[in-house]
Amino acid sequence: MPVETIDRLARELDAESARVAADVDRFFAQQLAPPGDSRDRLYEAMRHAAIGGGKRLRPMLTIAAARLFAIDGERALRAACAIEAIHVYSLIHDDLPCMDDADLRRGKPSVHKAFGDAVAVLAGDSLHALAFEIITDPDTHQDPWVRSDLSLELARAVGPAGMAGGQMMDLHAEGQKLDLPNISRLQQLKTGALIEFSVEAACIMNKMPPEARTPYRGYARNIGLAFQITDDLLDECGDEAAAGKRLGRDADAGKATFVSLLGQDRARQQAQLLVDQAIEHLSSHGSEANLLRAIARFAIERDH
Amino acid sequence: MPVETIDRLARELDAESARVAADVDRFFAQQLAPPGDSRDRLYEAMRHAAIGGGKRLRPMLTIAAARLFAIDGERALRAACAIEAIHVYSLIHDDLPCMDDADLRRGKPSVHKAFGDAVAVLAGDSLHALAFEIITDPDTHQDPWVRSDLSLELARAVGPAGMAGGQMMDLHAEGQKLDLPNISRLQQLKTGALIEFSVEAACIMNKMPPEARTPYRGYARNIGLAFQITDDLLDECGDEAAAGKRLGRDADAGKATFVSLLGQDRARQQAQLLVDQAIEHLSSHGSEANLLRAIARFAIERDH
Repeated sequence: MPVETIDRLARELDAESARVAADVDRFFAQQLAPPGDSRDRLYEAMRHAAIGGGKRLRPMLTIAAARLFAIDGERALRAACAIEAIHVYSLIHDDLPCMDDADLRRGKPSVHKAFGDAVAVLAGDSLHALAFEIITDPDTHQDPWVRSDLSLELARAVGPAGMAGGQMMDLHAEGQKLDLPNISRLQQLKTGALIEFSVEAACIMNKMPPEARTPYRGYARNIGLAFQITDDLLDECGDEAAAGKRLGRDADAGKATFVSLLGQDRARQQAQLLVDQAIEHLSSHGSEANLLRAIARFAIERDH
Repeated sequence: MPVETIDRLARELDAESARVAADVDRFFAQQLAPPGDSRDRLYEAMRHAAIGGGKRLRPMLTIAAARLFAIDGERALRAACAIEAIHVYSLIHDDLPCMDDADLRRGKPSVHKAFGDAVAVLAGDSLHALAFEIITDPDTHQDPWVRSDLSLELARAVGPAGMAGGQMMDLHAEGQKLDLPNISRLQQLKTGALIEFSVEAACIMNKMPPEARTPYRGYARNIGLAFQITDDLLDECGDEAAAGKRLGRDADAGKATFVSLLGQDRARQQAQLLVDQAIEHLSSHGSEANLLRAIARFAIERDH
């Protein structure tokens, strides 16, 4: 791809990313307005976690994929925010003292540091339920088949066969030296399943049968792994201020990562290969898929 | 009602209750079979919490209401188990050290006592997601409108405007003296919303529009409050061995309850009134609603 095209893609991605971040913040500010009773602190904790931070990778993927299929922007934003609500809930629970015990998240105190452990558990639980409320609301899609399929596939991506199962594998991995297939499987569940659903959600809203979703899921699976490898690289040699969280935690915990298994150079090559494969999955599309292509590049070319 | 009718109802309820408990156990045993990898301990924790215990009030309500509308028994059981999965998840998180810090549940060690806090958080999160997976599976209902409405109303009952919000109110109430309207509102969210959905789920499966569900929701709301008042009475003067958990915790924590506000006699009268009103909501039905009537009585005539 010529350099000027890459530069233009990077500028478009920056602009789009800022727009999506602002839209997601606006949506959560509306959705999480304090009810004016003794639950206000719960809503405050949810807003603390959900508004103003993060790379918003998952919403970006949903919105970019939805645009490919000309799906209404407000509807795509709702599905995107449901998925982001799940991601935010998982970060809140993951940061708890009994889990990763992290004090810092997205450059702010983690929810349990700011609001206490009990409110953090409830804020995570609340965002978890809220995601299903948002995604099955008729405002998200007029077709009940689409709504029930979104809910079913989201639940699969989030539960013990997806994200929560991956968290358990991660917990079990402490002090063990996993090999490459096991690390890949762990990451496919822990972060891959929800990233894959972020793209699949747009396919479902486009009423595509499961077999037609294959290339888009393939794209998302490759992106998810490339993103994780880049996270592992940044965890070893990134900048804590840019990341907004402590780095080097996996190495400290003696956990195997893509980088500890492959070394930095081979890990970088592997990430690049995954990005190339991701872009290859979009070969049936023209310039309308450029945003998805730009996200694929951004998955590995970033400093946090 | 003549005494022999009451005796017959009590026997029928006992038999039905045993059947439902066995069906729920069987369903969870299938659903939570170990996957044979490093998630096995997560599944073990879920089975520990979900199988073999509890009064199964919510599944009983769903199955009894579904029978009123001649809904297929296996489908009703699936919806019932989705709701029970939510109830079980809420107990696991509620028992955590940072929440109620309870060591004993349903006569067994609580999940965090048996498996550690991190696995308890993940087991709760997993059952939460699994509930939505079960309820939106085409096996639960062939009509996508029904599935998406079940998912939407379940999410509302579970999230910050329902159960999780009620938990937050309960947390906030510690050391405060709530009055009767505030206690009622707290309980309506914390336990009432899910109990109400247990009956509403059968109405949704029967494709009834929201306005037609009103008497059934009214029945469930009355049952929920009567059940809670009876819990408060048993918490003050019940038997710990029968309850399978520590009693007197609310009084120890200085929390206001229906009994501390009304006194035991007026609390008992109030519970009876609520049961009478619950049964009144079923007046358009003949003997086919006898199981729901028996459940209403059982809500207050029990020793645990």
